[in-house]
Amino acid sequence: MSSLADLPIRDDLRGLKPYGAPELKVRVALNVNENTHPIPEDVARSIIESVALELRTVNRYPDREFLKLRDSLAAYLNAALVEESAAAGLPVAELTRDNIWAANGSNEILQQILQAFGGPGRSVLGFPPTYSMHPIIAAGTGTEWIPGVRDENFEISPQTAVDWVQRTNPDLVFFCAPNNPTGTPLSLETIAAAYDATDKIVVVDEAYAEFGPSGEPTALSLLEGRPRLIVSRTMSKAFAFAGARLGYLAADPAISDALRLVRLPYHLSALTQAAATAALAHAPEMLAMVDDIKGQRDRMARRLAELGYSPYESTSNFILFGGVPDPHRMFEQLLEREIIIRDLGIPNHLRVSAGTESETTAFLEAMDEITPR
Amino acid sequence: MSSLADLPIRDDLRGLKPYGAPELKVRVALNVNENTHPIPEDVARSIIESVALELRTVNRYPDREFLKLRDSLAAYLNAALVEESAAAGLPVAELTRDNIWAANGSNEILQQILQAFGGPGRSVLGFPPTYSMHPIIAAGTGTEWIPGVRDENFEISPQTAVDWVQRTNPDLVFFCAPNNPTGTPLSLETIAAAYDATDKIVVVDEAYAEFGPSGEPTALSLLEGRPRLIVSRTMSKAFAFAGARLGYLAADPAISDALRLVRLPYHLSALTQAAATAALAHAPEMLAMVDDIKGQRDRMARRLAELGYSPYESTSNFILFGGVPDPHRMFEQLLEREIIIRDLGIPNHLRVSAGTESETTAFLEAMDEITPR
Repeated sequence: MSSLADLPIRDDLRGLKPYGAPELKVRVALNVNENTHPIPEDVARSIIESVALELRTVNRYPDREFLKLRDSLAAYLNAALVEESAAAGLPVAELTRDNIWAANGSNEILQQILQAFGGPGRSVLGFPPTYSMHPIIAAGTGTEWIPGVRDENFEISPQTAVDWVQRTNPDLVFFCAPNNPTGTPLSLETIAAAYDATDKIVVVDEAYAEFGPSGEPTALSLLEGRPRLIVSRTMSKAFAFAGARLGYLAADPAISDALRLVRLPYHLSALTQAAATAALAHAPEMLAMVDDIKGQRDRMARRLAELGYSPYESTSNFILFGGVPDPHRMFEQLLEREIIIRDLGIPNHLRVSAGTESETTAFLEAMDEITPR
Repeated sequence: MSSLADLPIRDDLRGLKPYGAPELKVRVALNVNENTHPIPEDVARSIIESVALELRTVNRYPDREFLKLRDSLAAYLNAALVEESAAAGLPVAELTRDNIWAANGSNEILQQILQAFGGPGRSVLGFPPTYSMHPIIAAGTGTEWIPGVRDENFEISPQTAVDWVQRTNPDLVFFCAPNNPTGTPLSLETIAAAYDATDKIVVVDEAYAEFGPSGEPTALSLLEGRPRLIVSRTMSKAFAFAGARLGYLAADPAISDALRLVRLPYHLSALTQAAATAALAHAPEMLAMVDDIKGQRDRMARRLAELGYSPYESTSNFILFGGVPDPHRMFEQLLEREIIIRDLGIPNHLRVSAGTESETTAFLEAMDEITPR
């Protein structure tokens, strides 16, 4: 047996550690922003039927263009778009399958975007603290990561975004809205201003969009007339489908044409396509838990504040809170109580996902116990 | 709507066309080397049961280390290794989960290998005509593709391999054994000689290994004591599982450590893991068609020779044949008869996959009709 140090790996990988939250089996897992509600029984049955049908032809390669899935994703986004546009008094620009692309998780979506528009000699501007995979995927594709600086309370004003874009002239701009791990919402004005300040690609990672205020427009409403804007989404969070690995994007059809040049052919399995399509046919039922999760999130924020911590505004399914004297120690104290949350290395901060009512209660009771008076 | 030419894609992608065989629905599809036999009913039922179980926790991220699947893949390879080693009178070095890595198709396996050991400023030596994705994945990871030249009849002698390795000093060597699209077997002597001629990574793509002569050792038997050797495999072909997208590799455990630095976390869905693990539990049944396919392949080779074509020796599930005056015209003539095979742009050659007995008969009868006397 050899060791990694003996192998001729790339110099820029030497000494790195693999990404990953600890995979511990505990009673209350609130560390990776999963939806802790299992999917409904009848939706599971519907998915199984679809998968069973696909197995009859699993000896064949899957549909390389995943047309049914793209139709289903477009229909799902259109339902929200119609509602958002009506609320904002805007005309609706409905999406079709040509506006949609999908991959094995939104990580793969972002990787394909960087392979097509980033890569060696190119750069991507992001605003840490943000989704920790953004700089890792940039490195994996040889794209230079430019860390911008946020305003107070982790916000990004239109002026801040424009200043950073003009100063660094990146090939891509990555936003995360709402931002992970801070939960911070991002205004459409900031996205539009950044878009206008560059002639390159602007990506808005909306993994947690469904946890935002009901009916409020997301970056989807900005797509019309902005062919360089990409909105990425995932079924992992609101859809409670993290195990099935389905990320997707909405954008001008030319974006998918670009990604077809770098995607591995047949990258989405027939089973993934079938399972996701079946789940999307039950979208309202799959999303039924979203309001409940938002309620638990707000309850956590209130209680954490009462306990003397500083929770940040969140339009996501998790809360970042400051005022923690020793995050590592608090992480361990919670783990002793079979509760796992996330220590992201931000001094004096921890992040916790909103769970079911009982999980959230378990977390808050533990916090009550371990908070010094 | 914009066009691809208006977007700021990488310069090296400009003007390229996406990879992909035409996705036509025809009666007899022998164009992408699929296993044309559906999987057995009882295996499908077993897979469905496993998938149903996984759906109960699909709201959670999948096992990032896919331990059960790696155990199953190791057990599957060990069964063949024991047989091969006994036949060759060699000691068996059994594989464990630590020797195994998996991804969404062997394309993703190769992509991760190139991300870890290739990339900008590095190069990979291959021997065209070979699997057409090899140079494409090299380009997608910024790795320079060095095309070596084969000997007569598409073979590669140990001396030829060593000469090319010494002359070009690549960071990786890619072999394909048996080779796609030619079907040509590759001797273990050639692989061992290439390995000894370099201190870099040697990859043997054994996608079609199960179609080789029964009991004959493959590159798996070379792994012991060669920590820079990687053998990649797939469940797409012999396992009739192309739709499920499961590629894997066997190598020294340090290789997986390297790939962990570049893989996207949770790249293998819980459904993929469950489906593949269940299929592997039925390996003998899943592979029952392999002998039948080998029989049809040999029948095609004999008949094509009788018709005046020049089929090459193949230890795969397809035949490359020369002596075709106008490949494009013959492709079209077969398509008119609802039979699709592959025109790979090799002058005067076409490639055809071995189908079921009736599919193979349909192809051979059509060839009988359209072959000029």
